[in-house]
Amino acid sequence: MRYPTPLLTLIRELSRLPGIGPKSAQRLAFHLFNQPTEEVLSLARALEEAKTGLARCPRCAHVMATGERACDVCLDPDRDGGLLCVVEQPADVLAIERSGEYTGRYHVLHGALSPMHGLGPEQLTITSLLERLEGVREVVLATSTTVEGEATALYLAQRLESSGVSVTRIAYGLPVGGDLEYADEVTLGRAMTHRRPV
Amino acid sequence: MRYPTPLLTLIRELSRLPGIGPKSAQRLAFHLFNQPTEEVLSLARALEEAKTGLARCPRCAHVMATGERACDVCLDPDRDGGLLCVVEQPADVLAIERSGEYTGRYHVLHGALSPMHGLGPEQLTITSLLERLEGVREVVLATSTTVEGEATALYLAQRLESSGVSVTRIAYGLPVGGDLEYADEVTLGRAMTHRRPV
Repeated sequence: MRYPTPLLTLIRELSRLPGIGPKSAQRLAFHLFNQPTEEVLSLARALEEAKTGLARCPRCAHVMATGERACDVCLDPDRDGGLLCVVEQPADVLAIERSGEYTGRYHVLHGALSPMHGLGPEQLTITSLLERLEGVREVVLATSTTVEGEATALYLAQRLESSGVSVTRIAYGLPVGGDLEYADEVTLGRAMTHRRPV
Repeated sequence: MRYPTPLLTLIRELSRLPGIGPKSAQRLAFHLFNQPTEEVLSLARALEEAKTGLARCPRCAHVMATGERACDVCLDPDRDGGLLCVVEQPADVLAIERSGEYTGRYHVLHGALSPMHGLGPEQLTITSLLERLEGVREVVLATSTTVEGEATALYLAQRLESSGVSVTRIAYGLPVGGDLEYADEVTLGRAMTHRRPV
């Protein structure tokens, strides 16, 4: 006795998501099997539309709606173009925006260096970062304070050394070992104010 | 500054899944945003096909492929039709099958009584259970040993009392307070062998 194919397929697809093992995938699949069709289809539609309706900003690689010229931050003329904050994920941009302590622009790496997971410099948006340094006087490295985030900050500091741009690291007001997006606004704001040269 | 609409929609849809809060939903959404289009679309397709390709068995409410007359267990002529095992979820059927100790048929409730979550007898498949007792000599209540599972077993024992069918409860070889589908085969097999009258 085995599960029907559509169920096995759904379990396999769900278990590819990060943090969802085979048991959780099975639970989710049975939950979805028992949900009204309209709710499951609206999740399926949301997935499709997230792929067709979203794109990376051509300047900073932050998430934006498909068809836009650039993301909201890049298009904002009141932003300090001489200040560039490098983060791992789009969610980190919003976390820093909520702190209200930052007036510059961003660059989203879409990950951190992690050779064990096959993430080297060419999997991140490092090339486009190095190509947009004209007019930039300071790069703030705001990667996470995890091992991977620290390694990425160190790597970027070395790559940026010859560019003449001042390179700073977000201050250790953050609890060490934590992911950036889980920090509260006050801590994040303080860490931004107390940034220090690498 | 806020997220584009397709991203907000996906986060909202994902956070409706059980065990996935707003932060996890955001993480999953960004993960999916960075996955190849083909992988995201194949998850979307799997969701759609799980709704169109799967149905409840008209006899026991177990999951089966759409278009089948009944599920594999109900169609198997070698099964003991006098023995009926009541479980909460389709996953529980497979867990008991793996134990190899059971030769009867099943009835899937699709949940347990839980007034706090709006689950009363009419949300479960109890009516169809009471309608299929002809030729049945024993009903084994194999709901979970959680508070809800025990309440459901007690409720069913009372409803079945007047039917003249012998009602048994799966033995407490199971660790108390655990969900059925997480038990190992040996424990489940022993619990099935040592079932006792209610």
